[in-house]
Amino acid sequence: MGCQTLGVGSLRSQTEYWMLKHKTTCRVTYGDTDKMGYVYHANYFRWFEIGRSEMFRHLGIPYSSIESRGFFLPLSEVHCKFNAPSTYDDTLLIETHLDPRIKAGMKFDYRIFTEDGKKLLASGYTKHACVDRDSRLVRPPKFLMDIILKNADAD
Amino acid sequence: MGCQTLGVGSLRSQTEYWMLKHKTTCRVTYGDTDKMGYVYHANYFRWFEIGRSEMFRHLGIPYSSIESRGFFLPLSEVHCKFNAPSTYDDTLLIETHLDPRIKAGMKFDYRIFTEDGKKLLASGYTKHACVDRDSRLVRPPKFLMDIILKNADAD
Amino acid sequence: MGCQTLGVGSLRSQTEYWMLKHKTTCRVTYGDTDKMGYVYHANYFRWFEIGRSEMFRHLGIPYSSIESRGFFLPLSEVHCKFNAPSTYDDTLLIETHLDPRIKAGMKFDYRIFTEDGKKLLASGYTKHACVDRDSRLVRPPKFLMDIILKNADAD
Amino acid sequence: MGCQTLGVGSLRSQTEYWMLKHKTTCRVTYGDTDKMGYVYHANYFRWFEIGRSEMFRHLGIPYSSIESRGFFLPLSEVHCKFNAPSTYDDTLLIETHLDPRIKAGMKFDYRIFTEDGKKLLASGYTKHACVDRDSRLVRPPKFLMDIILKNADAD
Repeated sequence: MGCQTLGVGSLRSQTEYWMLKHKTTCRVTYGDTDKMGYVYHANYFRWFEIGRSEMFRHLGIPYSSIESRGFFLPLSEVHCKFNAPSTYDDTLLIETHLDPRIKAGMKFDYRIFTEDGKKLLASGYTKHACVDRDSRLVRPPKFLMDIILKNADAD
Repeated sequence: MGCQTLGVGSLRSQTEYWMLKHKTTCRVTYGDTDKMGYVYHANYFRWFEIGRSEMFRHLGIPYSSIESRGFFLPLSEVHCKFNAPSTYDDTLLIETHLDPRIKAGMKFDYRIFTEDGKKLLASGYTKHACVDRDSRLVRPPKFLMDIILKNADAD
Repeated sequence: MGCQTLGVGSLRSQTEYWMLKHKTTCRVTYGDTDKMGYVYHANYFRWFEIGRSEMFRHLGIPYSSIESRGFFLPLSEVHCKFNAPSTYDDTLLIETHLDPRIKAGMKFDYRIFTEDGKKLLASGYTKHACVDRDSRLVRPPKFLMDIILKNADAD
Repeated sequence: MGCQTLGVGSLRSQTEYWMLKHKTTCRVTYGDTDKMGYVYHANYFRWFEIGRSEMFRHLGIPYSSIESRGFFLPLSEVHCKFNAPSTYDDTLLIETHLDPRIKAGMKFDYRIFTEDGKKLLASGYTKHACVDRDSRLVRPPKFLMDIILKNADAD
């Protein structure tokens, strides 16, 4: 299965703030499909997870290292719009954006394209709370914010 | 695993139309959880599927029978908000609402509660296109609309 | 989704020991299928989990209560043979057998039938180690063995 | 997620026949884990699928192309032994072997290692029937056998 990191960039959005951007690819397995012949919708959220997970890794802070420091990012809200179906053995391009203007939680936006980036298949977002080991809501920790803001400025 | 149908009702919404309502239950399996100890978020969409699937069955038109007549309801958009976590062996109450004012597609709303119905765990919706065997967008067929409208009025 | 417990029995095997037997049912969801139109094979192991989980519950020791007492039953080996395919909306009969002659670990055997019990769809087994909170191999605890042996004799 | 093909080789087994061998890697996602903190066992079969799927691709006959020529390889039997657990964000090495002495069906053997190949985590096999579009049992087609035998000899 071909899942590889294509690099992290940041793009200036029209509303004048920096947005971290990351691209990775993933291949659709047989188990991802359903009897209609296409990918079962819930699996797109597993790809969104791969998108943000690989973004964290590329920033030098794998999500496992955030957890080992005692911080967790449980999901509070998810959304996805499906534009066109994907099917078995398709290679998908997962584009993940992180809005660095973080207050209480974090929001990631995702777009899933055909491998060549030309056709949008799905788009959505996930919102995450930040909690400590005792499940208390906390602000994202400084070590996390520092890396995010540094990379948002780096372009 | 305890998944049983609790009956179909319809409730008058504040905006003065009828809403079909259906309740069913489901039990969280070990495989539904993740290393945080709670249910992995994408699995809520599998429960939403169970909710609308059991509503169709209770209306006398199992989704499989809709497909065998040549109509399909692929998802065009999904959304979920997570209020409180659920964990292994919890019995969940899945409440499914169908807005009978159907034009091109269908929209289902869902609420997932603790078994006693007292605590809201998650809420969301799914939007569906209606297509024929050739994947062409069509209006929901008359046999489907007739049953939905009849049940929406039945209260 | 219809998943209900049909009761626990015990049957005398030909090799002269008692075998705990339990039956439950489950319905195939759309997400369980793959593009071939049938259930994706890995999902049978989720039903095996439901089978042994409901057996534990019916014995009065839900698996969650075993864990809360500090014992865990991780899988050491699994096997499944597929005789005939199952598809969307099928109601399946899950028959779970537990061999009460337990030494170090536990072994469950499963058979999955059509709802009427007439056609065997799949059969397999799962083997489990027993470990404590520190992941050390231990013998299954006395409270668990007592209940299993009592029910194995009860026929 | 890092899933990449490491190449196809063939190794002479002790019983004097050639065995096709292929290696690929995959990374464990959060959704793959369960509340015990490790990978839920059924997911190993999804990795076995990735293993044989990437082997087919590397041989120049992606499984999708076998299907489009009218041949299907449904699973008839699966087995897995678990030696050591894997957890979130682990990179796994999937080693797939195909026994080229094919009569009616095909058998793949798999071994899953830590990324460095030093620690065996799980091993198992999958057996597949070969069927045509009408679900009739057939022999694996000549175009498939030719490629397999050519590569088995190629070492």
